[in-house]
Amino acid sequence: MEHAKNVLIIGASACGAKAASRIKRLRPDYRVTILDQGRYISYAACGIPYYLSGKVREFDDLLKTTYGRIRDVGYFKDLKDIDIRTGVRATGIDRASRRVAAVDLATGEPLAFDYEALVLTTGAAPKTPPIPGADLRGVYHLTTLDDAAAVAQEIRDGAGRAAVVVGGGFIGIEAAEALRLRKWDVALVERERQLFPGMLDFEIAALVQEHLYEQMIETEVDAEVRSFAGSDGRVTRVITGRKEYPADIVIVATGLRPNTALAEAAGLERGETGALKVNARLQTNDPAIYAGGDVVENRHIITGRQCYIPLGSTANKHGRVIADNICGRDAEFAGIQGTFICKALEYTAGATGITETQAARLGLDAAAVSVCGFDKAHYYPGSQIVALKLTVETGTRRLLGLQAAGKGDVARRIDVAATAMRLGATVDDVRQLDLAYAPPFSPALDVLITALDVADNVAAGLMRPITAGEAKGLLENGDGALILDVRSDLEFRRQHIDHPRVVNIPLETLPERLGELPREKTILCMCLLGLRGYFAQRILEAAGFPDVRTVEGGLFLWPGKDDLA
Amino acid sequence: MEHAKNVLIIGASACGAKAASRIKRLRPDYRVTILDQGRYISYAACGIPYYLSGKVREFDDLLKTTYGRIRDVGYFKDLKDIDIRTGVRATGIDRASRRVAAVDLATGEPLAFDYEALVLTTGAAPKTPPIPGADLRGVYHLTTLDDAAAVAQEIRDGAGRAAVVVGGGFIGIEAAEALRLRKWDVALVERERQLFPGMLDFEIAALVQEHLYEQMIETEVDAEVRSFAGSDGRVTRVITGRKEYPADIVIVATGLRPNTALAEAAGLERGETGALKVNARLQTNDPAIYAGGDVVENRHIITGRQCYIPLGSTANKHGRVIADNICGRDAEFAGIQGTFICKALEYTAGATGITETQAARLGLDAAAVSVCGFDKAHYYPGSQIVALKLTVETGTRRLLGLQAAGKGDVARRIDVAATAMRLGATVDDVRQLDLAYAPPFSPALDVLITALDVADNVAAGLMRPITAGEAKGLLENGDGALILDVRSDLEFRRQHIDHPRVVNIPLETLPERLGELPREKTILCMCLLGLRGYFAQRILEAAGFPDVRTVEGGLFLWPGKDDLA
Repeated sequence: MEHAKNVLIIGASACGAKAASRIKRLRPDYRVTILDQGRYISYAACGIPYYLSGKVREFDDLLKTTYGRIRDVGYFKDLKDIDIRTGVRATGIDRASRRVAAVDLATGEPLAFDYEALVLTTGAAPKTPPIPGADLRGVYHLTTLDDAAAVAQEIRDGAGRAAVVVGGGFIGIEAAEALRLRKWDVALVERERQLFPGMLDFEIAALVQEHLYEQMIETEVDAEVRSFAGSDGRVTRVITGRKEYPADIVIVATGLRPNTALAEAAGLERGETGALKVNARLQTNDPAIYAGGDVVENRHIITGRQCYIPLGSTANKHGRVIADNICGRDAEFAGIQGTFICKALEYTAGATGITETQAARLGLDAAAVSVCGFDKAHYYPGSQIVALKLTVETGTRRLLGLQAAGKGDVARRIDVAATAMRLGATVDDVRQLDLAYAPPFSPALDVLITALDVADNVAAGLMRPITAGEAKGLLENGDGALILDVRSDLEFRRQHIDHPRVVNIPLETLPERLGELPREKTILCMCLLGLRGYFAQRILEAAGFPDVRTVEGGLFLWPGKDDLA
Repeated sequence: MEHAKNVLIIGASACGAKAASRIKRLRPDYRVTILDQGRYISYAACGIPYYLSGKVREFDDLLKTTYGRIRDVGYFKDLKDIDIRTGVRATGIDRASRRVAAVDLATGEPLAFDYEALVLTTGAAPKTPPIPGADLRGVYHLTTLDDAAAVAQEIRDGAGRAAVVVGGGFIGIEAAEALRLRKWDVALVERERQLFPGMLDFEIAALVQEHLYEQMIETEVDAEVRSFAGSDGRVTRVITGRKEYPADIVIVATGLRPNTALAEAAGLERGETGALKVNARLQTNDPAIYAGGDVVENRHIITGRQCYIPLGSTANKHGRVIADNICGRDAEFAGIQGTFICKALEYTAGATGITETQAARLGLDAAAVSVCGFDKAHYYPGSQIVALKLTVETGTRRLLGLQAAGKGDVARRIDVAATAMRLGATVDDVRQLDLAYAPPFSPALDVLITALDVADNVAAGLMRPITAGEAKGLLENGDGALILDVRSDLEFRRQHIDHPRVVNIPLETLPERLGELPREKTILCMCLLGLRGYFAQRILEAAGFPDVRTVEGGLFLWPGKDDLA
């Protein structure tokens, strides 16, 4: 057995605390010290929005173990024999002498810590966009427990006031949900033309935006925030290129940037994303210095490229790998797939792998299919529709990505796809997956299996899909394409696309009524979710119609609801 | 394109209806006829328990499409151009002339149907154990809609009466749930010594049994049902070797046997399980005759052996494969993994692959680990504990099976494991899976990833596990082994194992109190879920204790709660 090492960790959050605990389990004889500049350690930062909404009742709940013990300095010392120094900021790393210089923030006293192995888990800080008024009181980020405490105080001070959230990524949306649940008026502004920019394709993100609208959260996309305006040093309004929003508070959630300054000053390399560069063992270019968590970039398993996607789940996995390597067990971190999930009031949205847009940007030859279906047996109470969009590499048929959104169980389908993709699965490898079936949990053919079957149908030329967005474009551009809605008369009357080139011929009467359809025009077959539309496409093709398409996801995926009657 | 074939299908349930629909989508010009001896077709048999419980409101809901249309003869004819003849029983297959003889059950008229391709989806019938009194009124099976209607009538006739369910597999448990939700007194008797015999290992099944007990369903395992007794031709009591139960109705759910008579009479081969034998294309030994659904056996992907596990999800996949082959697209069915899931009141239990017991029976060199953890972030409201048990092949580290039970989200973990196992994954391939993480959906490290990490720890000799059942045995057998409960004083006082050889030393005081522990004895370290126990094991080992083990799953997996105080 190797001699007992002296390990120093900078940062007592997910990665640092996990690494420390694992080291002490592997080698109770190692000495482990963590420096952290904050007051709170090892807290559940991802839980902050749920504390704000009141779902998580107590501030301390974000600090407790599963058995109710607060994770403070005493907890780490008494239960794990780990020394944590809070309120201590590392100021420099002397790599030659293996010594970290630090300062006690309360007293100003300079400190020094020797190490044999050093772990940098310095995390990330919120990006602050250069918006005039960003320094007004009432403008918050939402990354630390101090942020959480301050915003919680605002909520206690006045229910039902107005908040503006800047940034439509998952933290922004979680913040919007929290404030809406507190009955605040909430507006969300996003610079890109959709929510979840870079994470979801437009039409899947549009489903979430529509849901936020139903839940009275106003969303402005393609928004240019010009300034935060206020009086007496406190924010009162947010001014965009289009509009002015009243704002008692503003939450800025426009992304994170890695805290690399300490590492850079010590000559440690950053990667192409700007985050710290590490090898698979999570070593920096100094083999005695490891780094993990939100300060490093990761290899994206699907694209093979480096990416910066900081997440608590990844940080925990890093912690284990780092501990293993420090303790002489060889371990590598395999990389990430960009998996995420986000609750947005009654909706859930998530993805794994890459979107159709990302595949195109990377120059990959890929196709996408969208499918809507129920998450449980459709007759089981509480069953809900989920929309899935699969990205598949053409030729190899390798799965590249799955996006999902809806009121139903999205997490399960994302996780199954993430597992399949991690193992390099093709559509054919997983089309017949033996997934858990009982009516309270899934349809007999899970909606993900249906999506894979549809991908197979499309690749075989059986289904000729057109996205609802493209179909809408064809209608609007007036090139003569026709929408054939094959739902029942009753369904049609209840809700349909209000356009002169939309024809309702219920599927059951289609064979007799083929004469009513023009053979020279493109016919777009459509129903509620997509299956009957596909059946109609096959009937028309068999009858010799030359250009027939199925509208993917049917009316459920029709973008925007403004043209429905 | 091939000429338009004439396809005959016997049986209009999941596999038959799916095959017919897919054939008509692939080749609208094919002629498709289905014979079915019943009145109802293509119904949701798996939904019957939920109709009985009242969760599914209307009988017709079990017959409706997602858009509310009843799947009757007219639906199949009008929307799909499929001819279904109900009330018609096939009586013989003349393979030489490719003709099926049949009889109209209402008129007795003999009928004949030619085919070019024949599909046998004759399903399965309930096994009826040779119990005296099985023919009394009030004794039901639960496989057809006629059964459902009859039992629903009993429920309407008298709430809160007494029912006995015979059979502790998933149909029996679903029936018990349904009747309990109707406020009946329910007893469940099972011949084997556990619920879910052959599907779950003892200790995982015991969790479900404990939950049924909490929900006032009396369970007798290892039960010999001697007779159903009654008066005036109607059942009133169930008599077992131990006890006599009042019974206004009895539900017999002791398994299914495939309806192979028609096929056998035509010289089609049965496999080792007794069900029809088919090749990967789902052809019988007559290449013009396909078979699928509950009448066939399947290859088990993990064991490589044939097995008989009839399930609606498998039947649907069969339907697609058969349709593809009939229409000239080459398709194979990959096999199954024995995946199942079952709701049991507030509990869910499920599995995929094989159990530890099955692995041992097959002579596989395998090890199992059990882990309990929260299904969501533990601080998120509604988070629940799930117990996972992984079976892993020694050496190759290939995943062989996952079992799961608890009040939390079991389905997602089963499906992820099913996907990993389908793709031949080892523990190492999936330990760092990038699964969807946000507090409302999972802990930062999903409980399945924790289980895989524990499997890695065990294989590396870091964790030395003992199952809670084995630990209990050591206590009872009095060989001197000691249980060291390292939970806090408060947790211990609230609930603990009441035995003189159980010692409470909270983890934080363990380093100072090592002197209180005997070095010559086996020490079994234990906490609530398992993590602190493991930490204690590592501390004792580092201090030179020679025989220390961690009790897997802690108090949560302690079998039976009779020795707790």
